[in-house]
Amino acid sequence: MSVSKIDFLFNPKSIAVVGASTKPGTVGNDLLNNLVKDKFVGDVYPVNPKADEIHGLKVYKTLADIPGNVDLAVLCLNAKFVLDTVDQCKAKGVKGLVIISAGFKESGHDGAELEKQLTAKVREAGIPLIGPNCLGVINPYINLNASFAAKIALKGHLGFVSQSGALCTSVLDYAEDRQLGFSKFVSFGNKADVSETDLIEYLADDPGTKAIALYLESIGNPQKFIEVAAKTFWEKGKIILCLKSGRSAEGAKAVSSHTGSLAGGDAEYEAILKQAGVQRVTTIAELFDLASLYTTQPLPKGNKLAIITNAGGPGIMATDAAISAGLKLAHLSEATEAALKPKLPEAAALHNPVDVIGDAHSDRYQAAIEITMADPDVDMGVVLLTPQSMTDVDNCGKLLPEVIKKTSKPVVGAFMGVQQVAEGVKYLVEQGIPNYAFPEDAVKSLASAYKLVEMKNLKDRTYVEYKDVDVAAAKKVIDGYLSGGVTEKYLTQAEARPIFEAYKLPLLKSGIATSADEAAKIVSGIGSKVVLKVMSGDVKHKFDAGGVILNVEGADGAKAAYDKIYANIAKNVPGAKIDSILIEQMALEGDEVIIGCSRGGLGPLMMFGLGGTFVELFKDVQFRLAPMWKTTAEEMVRSIKSFKKLDGFRGTPKRDIAAVIDVVLRTSAMVVNHPEIAEFDINPLIVHAEGKGASVADSRVQLRKK
Amino acid sequence: MSVSKIDFLFNPKSIAVVGASTKPGTVGNDLLNNLVKDKFVGDVYPVNPKADEIHGLKVYKTLADIPGNVDLAVLCLNAKFVLDTVDQCKAKGVKGLVIISAGFKESGHDGAELEKQLTAKVREAGIPLIGPNCLGVINPYINLNASFAAKIALKGHLGFVSQSGALCTSVLDYAEDRQLGFSKFVSFGNKADVSETDLIEYLADDPGTKAIALYLESIGNPQKFIEVAAKTFWEKGKIILCLKSGRSAEGAKAVSSHTGSLAGGDAEYEAILKQAGVQRVTTIAELFDLASLYTTQPLPKGNKLAIITNAGGPGIMATDAAISAGLKLAHLSEATEAALKPKLPEAAALHNPVDVIGDAHSDRYQAAIEITMADPDVDMGVVLLTPQSMTDVDNCGKLLPEVIKKTSKPVVGAFMGVQQVAEGVKYLVEQGIPNYAFPEDAVKSLASAYKLVEMKNLKDRTYVEYKDVDVAAAKKVIDGYLSGGVTEKYLTQAEARPIFEAYKLPLLKSGIATSADEAAKIVSGIGSKVVLKVMSGDVKHKFDAGGVILNVEGADGAKAAYDKIYANIAKNVPGAKIDSILIEQMALEGDEVIIGCSRGGLGPLMMFGLGGTFVELFKDVQFRLAPMWKTTAEEMVRSIKSFKKLDGFRGTPKRDIAAVIDVVLRTSAMVVNHPEIAEFDINPLIVHAEGKGASVADSRVQLRKK
Repeated sequence: MSVSKIDFLFNPKSIAVVGASTKPGTVGNDLLNNLVKDKFVGDVYPVNPKADEIHGLKVYKTLADIPGNVDLAVLCLNAKFVLDTVDQCKAKGVKGLVIISAGFKESGHDGAELEKQLTAKVREAGIPLIGPNCLGVINPYINLNASFAAKIALKGHLGFVSQSGALCTSVLDYAEDRQLGFSKFVSFGNKADVSETDLIEYLADDPGTKAIALYLESIGNPQKFIEVAAKTFWEKGKIILCLKSGRSAEGAKAVSSHTGSLAGGDAEYEAILKQAGVQRVTTIAELFDLASLYTTQPLPKGNKLAIITNAGGPGIMATDAAISAGLKLAHLSEATEAALKPKLPEAAALHNPVDVIGDAHSDRYQAAIEITMADPDVDMGVVLLTPQSMTDVDNCGKLLPEVIKKTSKPVVGAFMGVQQVAEGVKYLVEQGIPNYAFPEDAVKSLASAYKLVEMKNLKDRTYVEYKDVDVAAAKKVIDGYLSGGVTEKYLTQAEARPIFEAYKLPLLKSGIATSADEAAKIVSGIGSKVVLKVMSGDVKHKFDAGGVILNVEGADGAKAAYDKIYANIAKNVPGAKIDSILIEQMALEGDEVIIGCSRGGLGPLMMFGLGGTFVELFKDVQFRLAPMWKTTAEEMVRSIKSFKKLDGFRGTPKRDIAAVIDVVLRTSAMVVNHPEIAEFDINPLIVHAEGKGASVADSRVQLRKK
Repeated sequence: MSVSKIDFLFNPKSIAVVGASTKPGTVGNDLLNNLVKDKFVGDVYPVNPKADEIHGLKVYKTLADIPGNVDLAVLCLNAKFVLDTVDQCKAKGVKGLVIISAGFKESGHDGAELEKQLTAKVREAGIPLIGPNCLGVINPYINLNASFAAKIALKGHLGFVSQSGALCTSVLDYAEDRQLGFSKFVSFGNKADVSETDLIEYLADDPGTKAIALYLESIGNPQKFIEVAAKTFWEKGKIILCLKSGRSAEGAKAVSSHTGSLAGGDAEYEAILKQAGVQRVTTIAELFDLASLYTTQPLPKGNKLAIITNAGGPGIMATDAAISAGLKLAHLSEATEAALKPKLPEAAALHNPVDVIGDAHSDRYQAAIEITMADPDVDMGVVLLTPQSMTDVDNCGKLLPEVIKKTSKPVVGAFMGVQQVAEGVKYLVEQGIPNYAFPEDAVKSLASAYKLVEMKNLKDRTYVEYKDVDVAAAKKVIDGYLSGGVTEKYLTQAEARPIFEAYKLPLLKSGIATSADEAAKIVSGIGSKVVLKVMSGDVKHKFDAGGVILNVEGADGAKAAYDKIYANIAKNVPGAKIDSILIEQMALEGDEVIIGCSRGGLGPLMMFGLGGTFVELFKDVQFRLAPMWKTTAEEMVRSIKSFKKLDGFRGTPKRDIAAVIDVVLRTSAMVVNHPEIAEFDINPLIVHAEGKGASVADSRVQLRKK
């Protein structure tokens, strides 16, 4: 999808409404009315074979009858007429299509079939399509409300993309209440052609768009999405927010019955959004809280918050919220406190939270903000205001932005209340300072902004190329297992060994000896301590029978141990037949972790977690989609809550994190290269002290023919 | 504090405003104005020696000059005149006092001294006092606004008690916007006399109060608070909500600089509120969300939610929110779906979430609500409405309550939007159905209601009395350690043993033998497997020297092991002097837990958690204040996230939870009986399989003279 083509959808010079209706209350009537009443700056042509005039406009029988060019055609017809109309659009030279009509994929099998034909047709014609089954598009800068939403969006800098049309009606209403403006607003319904990824790509280069907000129920092409979104965030510096619904299994079920989307498990989406550099929100309220901040204020440099308040209680609440969201309270310097002192009354608090106390007017607030925000330890600020009897709320709204704008740090308001602060808040927001009715939401939003800053640091998006990997060798082994009509095969660690060897995974060395000399040779080759184990169908309890000897070293040690096992068995299990002696390298001491992969609908999903009960008791695991950048693997490993256990916990040495990341990346490459690897688990990988590597202690692999 | 006395504060027949002022913008002027403009139903007497008339009322020079009785005196004077005025109030027969004046504890040492005198004086006079340093009291049912808040509260059923006055001004504003009404509204400032506990006790018996909401920065008498609040919730059935600020260490610091309260660590408050049956909220928004629900709707019987919606997306969001808050989606019966079918169009979803689709009018909603809520699997419902072009929002607001009221289950609205749903929401709320602007908040509130139901089940408040405990014996041991000028002593497990024995804690049996016969006797007495350990200053590595023998049983076994150790040492450490042989019972297999106690400002704080790294990595511990009811101990033990590890995890046997609870309760009794026990840790307590008890494997005790 070429981005330049998408622009016709948002910046048409002329629009035809095909299916414009004379009947009030219908989509074809409402939509045309919206274009007229909101005063679209270009030409509007209603098309309806049976009408002459609607909303004061001349109606054309067919598209072909329209005298001028048509950039955008909006279709509000019965689904069965859509394909033919697309043909007419092509003939007319239409450059963009919005299809409002329902009756496609969401309605069942026949609709899905129709939608496939539609997609094929518009792609063949080279006309970008939004919809079908959508609310339409809005661009307030040219008064374009090509939707059946009752109100046009306010002008602003948020690009909004929604997979749900009904949600958009509420979103526009919330947004108006919060004075949140939009650059582009689009409900894209069944996304038969233009996808979320296309729209992100378009908005990334749209100069009017500062941040992008998505409501999604599915993601079509995860790898493309990750690539485009990551570029938008890390290279182009535009923030993307996403409310992805269907987080729970129940929610996902509702998704598939709703739009017929392929329901992905939430772990997959969680992984995709993280890898894509998209900040996920879980509620509509949070989406607004953050969009208001990101479209108006700069990102903070650090995580130190200053609170300026006219009441103690809310100051404490904001402090609680800050700490629980991972922020810190800035420590104001003596110079700052000294500068504050003459500006504030004696009962005021000069430390953070700075309490200008209940009788403060705007001038006292101004001084406190100016001085406090200039403190080098302060990265961001929140101004709390309770409307007390002496408070000049309106003046505060009018005058505080002046000093706030002088700082390059993000500052938000929390004018607490509704009616009593309404005027003040209006002034504040008009001047680009977001306001929150509750201090907790203000602080939580600033904390999210800081999380973005941490995310920005993960900007390196390099793939590790492993030259030492032998893809062909692994393929040969896999093909061998899946030959002769075998379509599925479960591999033990021994069977998976050659595949893992091809990917240079840190396997424990091992060998099988049938003579003392052979044992000596193997042990010398391994070069570190080993365990010798008797292999015999006759020996049930190897340990009790003296069939296992630990901590064996060197050639002589190996020979002695080999002979000792034979002697032990002869004595303890007379007559037992010994097949061989298994020699395994003994793993160094370390912590156990799990690395695995399964495949859902969206690609190979890699998992990482600590071993043992942690995974099961606390669900403390992280997922990412393969392939992944090196940075992603690092971030994945460091993101488990129990990471500190690997990082020098309670006096144990730091573990070899680099070795863990290496295994994650090598196995990611493995599952990408070999789609036949349906699942695998390395459980446990023993992670040794820093510099000592890691050892695959046990594993299993599930092969499935593609 | 007698509850009947408090009633004079909220239901006075006459009020004197001492310090009534002619000067607009002062508290003494505003407050009097509030009484006048809000039309207080009784008599109002301004008192000011220098004025004749204020706000149309005759002014009296002194209290004594007032012709009639004065039930309530509201003081807006400089702090230095307060004590004398209280004397005059007493002389006049005043029955209640509200002191707005600041200049007491919050202002430093002198103010604190003055406050002490004030408390002594009002208590001696027997006049209940609200304040000082407060906003005042409001009772909308008698038009009483004895506060300097600009607006009186709406009538309703929430009793609101706030330790912050400034917060109240915002709260009244939020409340008006949400049409939330109050039975009583009180800012109690420094609480020099009437405390949060007194107010809860009063509101518990106030017929107009359905639920109580507290904003607290401290709790004065925790045990009394727990007793009164628990009675209010479990016996009188009134729900108490609490926003306790100062959750973080930083927040707590701000608290103490704010009101001079003694800052308790948050773990203490968390414990107190849980034990008291108080539902804690962490944001003001949550306080409103829940208060709206609890003052209007019944509690649910179970946790199964039905969602009725006119749009798919919001239905999924509500589902996500429900699952993540611990609710389940109700499974509608075939009969329910069959009943829905003829009432809904073909494209509608008959399963939960029930989607009445975008063109639904109120009649379709009514049918869907009526049928769905009647399904026996449904415990609660949420009605989502997006204002689409066909939606008759106002009618929905008017007519849905009718069907909602027919069910005995809680149902809330989530009419999504602001302006476009405002009228509809107004109708809805007026008829007692709370509405939430966002589906997530609606569902989260219902989930909180279900948590209350679970809490209600913990109603048994019986203390276990341990007849087998020997308090005197323990006291004697403790006094012995703290005799001769010793004020602090750290006890090893061996030193703590006699105290633990007096409390019949499950200690591993042990003894010291200096002969094989003695060893035999001790081992026979223990009656289960033991370990023998050499006690010798000369033997550094007991194990390597053969100085430890595990799994010894019976008299003969004991003798043999005793002799064997002597032989081993003689051989391996020639010349070593052996002091004795320590004999310890071997603990059965089990899981390790920690039980401990420390003392903060509010009492002995008991802690419970799993042993090992769980506590440190995941902070997975629970705190409760001693003494505690048996139910509390049970709930404490079951509340750790990792409880399932004890409850038959991955095939291990269920552990003896009863034995753990017994140790919690016995040690709770211990710390209550012996305030000299400043801290103790039993770490680990090994919990064996069900019925097999638990064993104190290691412990330490810190004694401190009181």
